[in-house]
Amino acid sequence: MFLELFRALTVLEACREIARHMIIPARCKTVPLKESLGCRLFEDVMAADDVPGFNRSTMDGFAVRAKDTFGASESLPSYLDIAGEVFMGEDAAEAIDPGKAWRIPTGGMLPRGCDAVVMVEYTEELDQSTIGVTRPVAPGENIVRRGEDIASGEVLISRGRVIRPQEMGALAAAGVTSVKVVEPLSISIISTGDEVVDAAKTPGPGQVRDINSYSLYGMAARAGAAPRLCGIIGDDYRRLKETMESEMTDSDVIILSGGSSVGTRDVSARVIQSLGDPGILFHGISVKPGKPTIGAVVKGKPVFGLPGHPVSALVVFILLVEPLIRLGRYPDSEEEFMKDFPVTATITRNLRSAAGREDFVRVSLRQQDGKVLADPILGKSGLIATMANADGIARIPHSLEGVEAGDTVRIKLL
Amino acid sequence: MFLELFRALTVLEACREIARHMIIPARCKTVPLKESLGCRLFEDVMAADDVPGFNRSTMDGFAVRAKDTFGASESLPSYLDIAGEVFMGEDAAEAIDPGKAWRIPTGGMLPRGCDAVVMVEYTEELDQSTIGVTRPVAPGENIVRRGEDIASGEVLISRGRVIRPQEMGALAAAGVTSVKVVEPLSISIISTGDEVVDAAKTPGPGQVRDINSYSLYGMAARAGAAPRLCGIIGDDYRRLKETMESEMTDSDVIILSGGSSVGTRDVSARVIQSLGDPGILFHGISVKPGKPTIGAVVKGKPVFGLPGHPVSALVVFILLVEPLIRLGRYPDSEEEFMKDFPVTATITRNLRSAAGREDFVRVSLRQQDGKVLADPILGKSGLIATMANADGIARIPHSLEGVEAGDTVRIKLL
Repeated sequence: MFLELFRALTVLEACREIARHMIIPARCKTVPLKESLGCRLFEDVMAADDVPGFNRSTMDGFAVRAKDTFGASESLPSYLDIAGEVFMGEDAAEAIDPGKAWRIPTGGMLPRGCDAVVMVEYTEELDQSTIGVTRPVAPGENIVRRGEDIASGEVLISRGRVIRPQEMGALAAAGVTSVKVVEPLSISIISTGDEVVDAAKTPGPGQVRDINSYSLYGMAARAGAAPRLCGIIGDDYRRLKETMESEMTDSDVIILSGGSSVGTRDVSARVIQSLGDPGILFHGISVKPGKPTIGAVVKGKPVFGLPGHPVSALVVFILLVEPLIRLGRYPDSEEEFMKDFPVTATITRNLRSAAGREDFVRVSLRQQDGKVLADPILGKSGLIATMANADGIARIPHSLEGVEAGDTVRIKLL
Repeated sequence: MFLELFRALTVLEACREIARHMIIPARCKTVPLKESLGCRLFEDVMAADDVPGFNRSTMDGFAVRAKDTFGASESLPSYLDIAGEVFMGEDAAEAIDPGKAWRIPTGGMLPRGCDAVVMVEYTEELDQSTIGVTRPVAPGENIVRRGEDIASGEVLISRGRVIRPQEMGALAAAGVTSVKVVEPLSISIISTGDEVVDAAKTPGPGQVRDINSYSLYGMAARAGAAPRLCGIIGDDYRRLKETMESEMTDSDVIILSGGSSVGTRDVSARVIQSLGDPGILFHGISVKPGKPTIGAVVKGKPVFGLPGHPVSALVVFILLVEPLIRLGRYPDSEEEFMKDFPVTATITRNLRSAAGREDFVRVSLRQQDGKVLADPILGKSGLIATMANADGIARIPHSLEGVEAGDTVRIKLL
């Protein structure tokens, strides 16, 4: 059987194989800033002007020329004339003269010539027109300089960055109220298998409800794709081929989630291979759970045959599909790959693995004495409830034959 | 001035003060399973039936009575008659007789009386009707028992749980295709300050664009609320009061983000205090950045006066507003609070703090030799760009007067 011709690849090898043949489109669309959360920037956004556009006080007090305060102390204050008051949001049109001070609120604009602000706490008002400064300030003290937050002409946010709330704030600061973003990848999700029935139906004897359509739909949506559910196709070569051909015209990525039987896997593989070049690139990855995974590219579009077991399907989706959705590409190194596993925790029991195989273990997290502990959730990869009880998945790298209780593991939160 | 009467509270104290007076509504709505991602379950979902609904094979092979294989070995196989074949998705109506085996695919339904599956690899077919089993199986081996994933009558997912992709899968498995979820909290976001202009405008001298409306909008939306931007109100008691009164009728939570000047803060505080009982509960929290925070409850609705500095506003939002949106309540212990800081990393430089004050330090994360390192991003809390460059915020607890390079810190990813 031709499936056997393929050696199981590591995740990074599998990603590279797909990447070598895929063409991920980068269509753009323009969205209002308010609706840009979670979108990926299509191009660099340049700052058109300085933020703030003026030297700005960060304290309530007096704007001064710093050198007029040098040597000031409680016992020998520097006396300065109050030249006037800066009001919030208004131009500080006048320049400062030597020996003078301007009353200024937090956020106010420094008059020309001022290079520092004395906090009100370190002044004493002698009368309406004179203050004593009791502590010197250095140039730049208690101010934000013009352009210190964002400098005109610099790249404010780079293309490819996913917009978080703080990026929305930075874009607003720069006056960018509509944003060119990458249009989400469209992803078709097809469930296969003679035993699978729609979630709304009551399964007959020997039948099970379609779990993967929904969990993969959720995964795809959460990662930022535009997923589409294409329903359930039995082990029927012609129907599966028709469905996939039709989805290939509209979608950027096609995902089959298996039927778990050899029969279903064979039908899926034959259909994928019939759709176009280069076709199937690997059948089997050295990952547990998730080994029986088909990776293919057809006319530039990635096509994945995920395992039928719900946990396996989710793990493989996380490894092979999610990066495409989020980044439009694959991580190009082990280090970048591991960015998705930012949590370190102490595993609480021994786990065996096999050298050369990467294992992903469902874990629930808890805290003890300020440490984060990861309790493995054991259970077959067919059990979706084990995934619903998990906070994350811990990775046991190929290089290890297991971990021992007390070892540190890296975890991706689910 | 009455602001001075309030002692700065810790975050947990501040949460408790708000919690003592607030009434967070729990309205529910029903959404299709496909659209339930990120929603919070309004009530426990019970499993109406067993998943799977039958004993199921996890391997391709032969369904047997385990005891018929006891003692089998390569040199002395157990010989069994092939009674028939189970087909995917079909009823295995017949029961097994002693000494028999049913051919079964992965996912197939075990005939009555079978309690294990022998993998095809450990059988040899002698002829069309007889196999030799070369390795014994234990009862339960290579099968998923009826109800092993989800048992009928048990709580499948508890109320209050946020629906992730795997919960969507578990709900589908149980046939739950529409879900009763908590309706998102509605949150009004008001920017204040005479110096603040709309992000679409070009600021005049002394003016700055409204950053907080957008970053807080993004934060609220990401946490699962229904935020509404109410625009910018200058330091105008009457207009602010009118706006807040009108927002109070529609929204569950009101957020002001300051103007940074004393004048603006005073106006905000006076308006909040005028709206109803109990009014302002604290003014100032022992957090950096974020100290000048007003916490209030008016007629059961939480009202927050966040600092004007963009970084401070985001940090305080994360601490005091986000839990309400996500959980509908506050964490009730330090440990639960720290669940939001799941990442541990090694800080790469010394940072000073003050005992009794919690510091939140922007950090960017990188990896080195398999360890996660957190580089502090220094910069004033008025600079939104520092937040856009941050991967997370690290916490320095009250009990410490700082951390040293090499110390472990807990981080919330942004």
